[in-house]
Amino acid sequence: MKHKVIFDTDPGVDDAMALLFLHKHPEIDLVGITSVFGNASIETTTRNALYLKREWGIPAPVARGANETFDPSRPHAGWPTFVHGDDGLGNIGVPDDIGLEPDPRPAHRFIIETVRANPGEVTIVAVGRMTNLANALKEDPEIAGLVKQVVIMGGAFDVPGNVTPAAEANIHGDPEAADHVFLAPWKIVVAGLDVTHQTHMKRGFLDDMAARGGADVKLLQKVSDFYIKFYAHAVEDGMLVHDSCACVYVVAPELFELRSGAVRVVCGGIADGQTIQKPDGMQFGPSEWDGKPSHAVMVGVQPDKVLGLLSRTLAP
Amino acid sequence: MKHKVIFDTDPGVDDAMALLFLHKHPEIDLVGITSVFGNASIETTTRNALYLKREWGIPAPVARGANETFDPSRPHAGWPTFVHGDDGLGNIGVPDDIGLEPDPRPAHRFIIETVRANPGEVTIVAVGRMTNLANALKEDPEIAGLVKQVVIMGGAFDVPGNVTPAAEANIHGDPEAADHVFLAPWKIVVAGLDVTHQTHMKRGFLDDMAARGGADVKLLQKVSDFYIKFYAHAVEDGMLVHDSCACVYVVAPELFELRSGAVRVVCGGIADGQTIQKPDGMQFGPSEWDGKPSHAVMVGVQPDKVLGLLSRTLAP
Repeated sequence: MKHKVIFDTDPGVDDAMALLFLHKHPEIDLVGITSVFGNASIETTTRNALYLKREWGIPAPVARGANETFDPSRPHAGWPTFVHGDDGLGNIGVPDDIGLEPDPRPAHRFIIETVRANPGEVTIVAVGRMTNLANALKEDPEIAGLVKQVVIMGGAFDVPGNVTPAAEANIHGDPEAADHVFLAPWKIVVAGLDVTHQTHMKRGFLDDMAARGGADVKLLQKVSDFYIKFYAHAVEDGMLVHDSCACVYVVAPELFELRSGAVRVVCGGIADGQTIQKPDGMQFGPSEWDGKPSHAVMVGVQPDKVLGLLSRTLAP
Repeated sequence: MKHKVIFDTDPGVDDAMALLFLHKHPEIDLVGITSVFGNASIETTTRNALYLKREWGIPAPVARGANETFDPSRPHAGWPTFVHGDDGLGNIGVPDDIGLEPDPRPAHRFIIETVRANPGEVTIVAVGRMTNLANALKEDPEIAGLVKQVVIMGGAFDVPGNVTPAAEANIHGDPEAADHVFLAPWKIVVAGLDVTHQTHMKRGFLDDMAARGGADVKLLQKVSDFYIKFYAHAVEDGMLVHDSCACVYVVAPELFELRSGAVRVVCGGIADGQTIQKPDGMQFGPSEWDGKPSHAVMVGVQPDKVLGLLSRTLAP
C-alpha cells in the first residue's frame, strides 16, 4: 500500500527538492499538488509547480490555491525574494508560459474532493502557509475525520523562529490559518525548526547527488545555488532542507522523535505567528490550550539518516 | 569586597531559602529586603519577610512594595495558595503580629535611594513579580545606569512555562512590569525555568541540611513540607529551588551557562507573560526586539554544584 499524498506547497527551492522526493519515492503515490502563496505570489508558485511537473514528468495535477490570508484584513508583508529569488526558484529564469493548465478546482476544493474520494487514505504534506488547509476545513469541517494524517513543515517550538525571534515563516505568513488547522481534530505531525535546523545539506552532498543522478537532480542543483548563498549566515556552504524533512517523515517516521500536546498559534502582538505546544502530562493553570486536540511535534531528528534517504531516493 | 544585595521577594517558600542563603553567605552584604505581591498578597509577603527577619536575626530593613500591577487595569488572578499555602510559608501558622515595622519608604523608593547611595555597587536579586523594579525605573530611570546588575528569577525561554504552556509565574503575574524592566539599559541576568527546572532538591537533601544545621535551617525544613507535596507532579519527593538559583549566581556565576540577547515579554493574548529572547548573532527580519538592550539568559546549569553551595552555606 503506497501512501497517497497531497503536497501543499509554495515552490520555493526546498519545496522543489521535497516535491522530487515525493515523486520518486516508490512507497509514495503523489495524487495532487496544491499551490499556496508564501515563498512567492500565487501566480509564481503555481507557475513553478507546473514547471516542475513538466520538467520531471509528474502525473499529479496542480491545483491553484490561496492568494490571501485566512483573515483577509491581515496586512501583506512582501515576498522573501532574498531567499528563493525573484522567480521563486533561485533565479534560474523559469519561463512564464509552461504550456500546462492547472486543475480547474481551487486548491481547497481539490483537497476536499480528493479526501472525500479516498476516506482515511490521504496524507496531506503541507510545507507552505496553512491557508489552503484552513480554507478546506472551513468549507468542509468533516474532512478532519477523513484525512489519514497531516504532516506540516512549520513553526518553532523550543528554538527561536526565523522571521522573528518568535515565529517561523510558514506560520508567520498566516497565523490565523495555522491556529484554525491546529484546532481541528485530525492527526497532525509538525516538522518545525527544532528539527529542520539540524538537517544541513552541504553543497558537496548536493553536488554528489547531481553527479550521480539524472537531469531531475541536476535541476535541483541549479535552483539551489541562490538558496545556499542565502544560507551562508546559518550553514557553512550548504542549506536547510526544511520541506524535505516533512516528506521523509511519511515513509520513515522512525527517524524523528515526537512530543504530543495541543498546539496554538499566537495571532497578533510581538510574538505574532509563534507556535506553542502544551506538552501532554505537564501541569499548568487554566489556559487556551485546555481541551484542544493533541498533535505530534518533532523534537528530535537523525539528520544523517534523513539525508541518506533523500540521497538514495533522488539519485538511486 | 562583599556583594551589596537588595532582595526583592514575595515569600514564598523558595524565597525563604534564598533569603537565608543571602543572609548567611560570607561574600554577600544583604542591604535590604523589598516585598512584592505574587506568591501571596502584599500584606502576607511583607509580614513573612518581617517574620523571617525576626526569626533569623537579619539586620537588613524590609520595605513594603507593590500591591497592584504596573498596568493597574490588568485583572487580578488570585494567589497560588496551593503552592505556598494560605500563609505563604507552607501553612506553618505564621503569627499575624511580628512586632517589627517595615521601613517607612515604599519598596521602589527604597530601591532608588539605596542604589543612589551606592552607585555602581548594588546587585538587585528579584525573585517575584517585576513590579517594584518597574516602579523604581518609572520614577527614576537613571538608576538603570547606577545598579551593578539585576539578577532575576523568572521566565521560561526554551522550555514551557509553569502557569500556562507559555508563561512562568513571576513574569505572568505582571507582564507589563517585566517588559519595562527588560527594556531598560541595565545589566540583567535571568534565571528562568530553563535552569531552575533542572535544580531539584530532594527531601532527603533538605533533611540532611536540617539535621546538620541550626534552627534557621530547621525552619526552612518546616516551611518546605507543603511545597514538596505540591511539587509531587514534577519532582520525585523534592522541590524546585527557583529563587535560590538566582542568589547562587551572585557568588558563583561560573555554575551557569549564559546566552546574550534582547528579551521581550508578551503582553496579552494566549501567550500573555511569555519571555522571548532574540539571541545575539542570529539573523531575523525586522522585529520588536531590534535595538533593545541585550541581557544574559541562563541556558545551562550545574545543579549538583548549585545544591552543594546551598548546603555548605545554609548548614556549614
